[in-house]
Amino acid sequence: MPKKIDRREFLAAAGAAGVALAATSMATVQKPQTARRPSKGAKSAAGLVAPKLDRVRVGFIGVGARGSGHVGHMLNIEGVDVVAICDNYAPSAERAAKRVAEKTGKASATYTNGDRDYKRMLDRDDIDIVFISTPWDWHVPMAVDAMKAGKHAFLEVPAATTVEGCWELVDTAEVTQKHCMMMENVNYGREELMVLNMCRLGVFGELLHGEAAYIHDLRGQMHEVERGTGSWRTLEYAERNGNLYPTHGLGPVAQYMDINRGDRLDYMSSVSSPSRVREIYAKKNFPPDHKWNKLKFQCGDINTSIVKTVNGKTLMIQWDEQLPRPYTRHNLVQGTKGIWAGFPDRTVIEGKTKSTHEWTEGGELDALFSEYEHPLWKRVGEEAKRQGGHGGMDFVMMWRIIYCLRNGLPLDQDVYDAATWSVITPLSEWSVKNRGQSMDVPDFTRGKWKTMKPLGIVS
Amino acid sequence: MPKKIDRREFLAAAGAAGVALAATSMATVQKPQTARRPSKGAKSAAGLVAPKLDRVRVGFIGVGARGSGHVGHMLNIEGVDVVAICDNYAPSAERAAKRVAEKTGKASATYTNGDRDYKRMLDRDDIDIVFISTPWDWHVPMAVDAMKAGKHAFLEVPAATTVEGCWELVDTAEVTQKHCMMMENVNYGREELMVLNMCRLGVFGELLHGEAAYIHDLRGQMHEVERGTGSWRTLEYAERNGNLYPTHGLGPVAQYMDINRGDRLDYMSSVSSPSRVREIYAKKNFPPDHKWNKLKFQCGDINTSIVKTVNGKTLMIQWDEQLPRPYTRHNLVQGTKGIWAGFPDRTVIEGKTKSTHEWTEGGELDALFSEYEHPLWKRVGEEAKRQGGHGGMDFVMMWRIIYCLRNGLPLDQDVYDAATWSVITPLSEWSVKNRGQSMDVPDFTRGKWKTMKPLGIVS
Repeated sequence: MPKKIDRREFLAAAGAAGVALAATSMATVQKPQTARRPSKGAKSAAGLVAPKLDRVRVGFIGVGARGSGHVGHMLNIEGVDVVAICDNYAPSAERAAKRVAEKTGKASATYTNGDRDYKRMLDRDDIDIVFISTPWDWHVPMAVDAMKAGKHAFLEVPAATTVEGCWELVDTAEVTQKHCMMMENVNYGREELMVLNMCRLGVFGELLHGEAAYIHDLRGQMHEVERGTGSWRTLEYAERNGNLYPTHGLGPVAQYMDINRGDRLDYMSSVSSPSRVREIYAKKNFPPDHKWNKLKFQCGDINTSIVKTVNGKTLMIQWDEQLPRPYTRHNLVQGTKGIWAGFPDRTVIEGKTKSTHEWTEGGELDALFSEYEHPLWKRVGEEAKRQGGHGGMDFVMMWRIIYCLRNGLPLDQDVYDAATWSVITPLSEWSVKNRGQSMDVPDFTRGKWKTMKPLGIVS
Repeated sequence: MPKKIDRREFLAAAGAAGVALAATSMATVQKPQTARRPSKGAKSAAGLVAPKLDRVRVGFIGVGARGSGHVGHMLNIEGVDVVAICDNYAPSAERAAKRVAEKTGKASATYTNGDRDYKRMLDRDDIDIVFISTPWDWHVPMAVDAMKAGKHAFLEVPAATTVEGCWELVDTAEVTQKHCMMMENVNYGREELMVLNMCRLGVFGELLHGEAAYIHDLRGQMHEVERGTGSWRTLEYAERNGNLYPTHGLGPVAQYMDINRGDRLDYMSSVSSPSRVREIYAKKNFPPDHKWNKLKFQCGDINTSIVKTVNGKTLMIQWDEQLPRPYTRHNLVQGTKGIWAGFPDRTVIEGKTKSTHEWTEGGELDALFSEYEHPLWKRVGEEAKRQGGHGGMDFVMMWRIIYCLRNGLPLDQDVYDAATWSVITPLSEWSVKNRGQSMDVPDFTRGKWKTMKPLGIVS
């Protein structure tokens, strides 16, 4: 039945558990508490440096379409040992373990005994980091358990779906002094890295405005009825209404704008359109008594949010996973001297490109790529393109994670970024439910954003 | 000194008066009262039909760059007599009068005796309609005076800059039963008319979301120091902060969505970026003691607003008159079956265009223009292109205005549209000043939006 395999299929078959977890997100009917909270740990996790690892010993929770891709990358990066693999769907775990054995000659342990067997894997003392690629509602409990068990946590997006969940990640990272990185792969795309470099070099002048989106017609996932992303993600559209997937668009724009590192998100408002096309799609593609035809879809087909930062910059963030139209993440950043926009890539730089009244685009951008290519992409971009994974961004991210861990460097994305980029979802839900009333964005850094330095142009 | 002549230069030299009027808009620091108000007139002006005019006798207030264009169109439309011309800058009035005399052989009266000589012109009993093309703050008092003097009022955009001003137009139109049309010319553009036609035919399915903008780098207007648009419009950027010019983008999208005719704007939120590039431009282009270098610019360089309608549709409205980047009005409308977007024109129609994942654009749109061209454009589009004026939209609008007046038809845009499209400005100002708090949009129709029929596809 599944039309295509997609990301994070762990627990896909756990229908009952999935529904129960999804229901907890309805708690956002009450206004989320967004005031800064007292720290539970003795230290911040801002700029966290963990002891260097000679080799990085890895465990996986969830090796469906997305997690199995991560396994593949780990087998192609030096200094990594794949120690253990957990998935409640045994064939997925065994397929991944077989791949590891074929590549390395070493067997990795498997954990396939139900939804909570990952805890047994976390009891091991020969694992340094854990990759978590499971349905959204499992991200927080699994990451918290991993950190408490002494492992660094690497999470799929979004990191959390509630304000409480965001704080739980932050508190646990601070108390345990473990990394908690939400793996926003788009920040490692070739264009995004180059634009970050251009922003740091001041090419666009002082930054004033950005636009970020995840607009991707994913209706086809509904054909993943019993297993795969559609089997659990479809339920989200019935339970919630807001921007359900903000981080792919926001992550790069937040780094351009030094969010949590000199500036911070201050407040936001959000509106959602009516919910229409998933019901239409279900009626057209499934029998009347099919479970998709028994759902009442709540989530507006397109959500638009506006955000203001403490330093005054503005953002427009959109989400739409169902309307018939081409893909975009917008990837727009605009300053006093120019603008970059994506999908398709185009730019204006005052005094540099041919005109401020006409886009420079297509082949005309080659000279800019030559001039501003990010050092990280120069170093591993060619290898990344060979390895694949969303045009190479996945490999660059994985390479960089392992590099930082082996060299005792802070990660490019920390737990505060994970919380800030993810919290757009519950705040948008509440604003949508309350006539677009503006919501304060919590300061997860507890003031450290004022002193944290902007992310460097690493190589 | 003026680099270029632009729209509405009437009163441009009246520096002191201009500043005094601009200062009144600061009253929006207090939260505007947006609740519905009791009617002052016995009748609504919704669907207003005025007695047929055999010939239309016209007076002009303001014949600068914009108003003189209107004179030109009136001389090329049958059944029109240009009776009188008012401008406080005598050379403009005389130039326009000379043009009339050359074309028609008849002299038109001129009124050039200061800022309020227009009232003397309004005392005449041989004028049916008045075109008002003056600086923004003069629009309401002049239109109100015109209607009270028994004339139909045709206003340049925006109709009003305050909530009070919007209500004043509505109240006066209802009491006097005179037309008060804000001449949103963009609604008569070829693309906009065709998209309206496609919306009415259901090509995009049920409409869910729209995007509208006025993004136009107008910094060059600052070189109009003593006369012309820049001489008074530059002051607006120093006095206010919000979306100062919403109607060119919003007008067409509001008609696609049947706003005030089956649906209505419910509430909105707004954010503005910092104000930067006009100060930079002034420093670079004018001496340190120049008046532009003594202004403190307040208006954020880019404003982004989100709006929700009573029926649930969403809009994103942007404004930016200064950042270095190409022009756009967005002109985006999206429904359950497809999307149209402008700048450049592109579309997806499920089951019709080549793919939902790829834009149909450029020459591929020819077939759609053949199929969906608006009847009004078919009728006068070729003539309009010859006449010019923003690609023909100005002529089509003027032709249609005269046609409706001579045939006793309701106008395509009424006083409620003028108020609703213009009120975005003061509501955005208040939201920007108050952490993006959402503002109710007044129901200027006093409930008539529920029964007013959608604008027909006229020919």
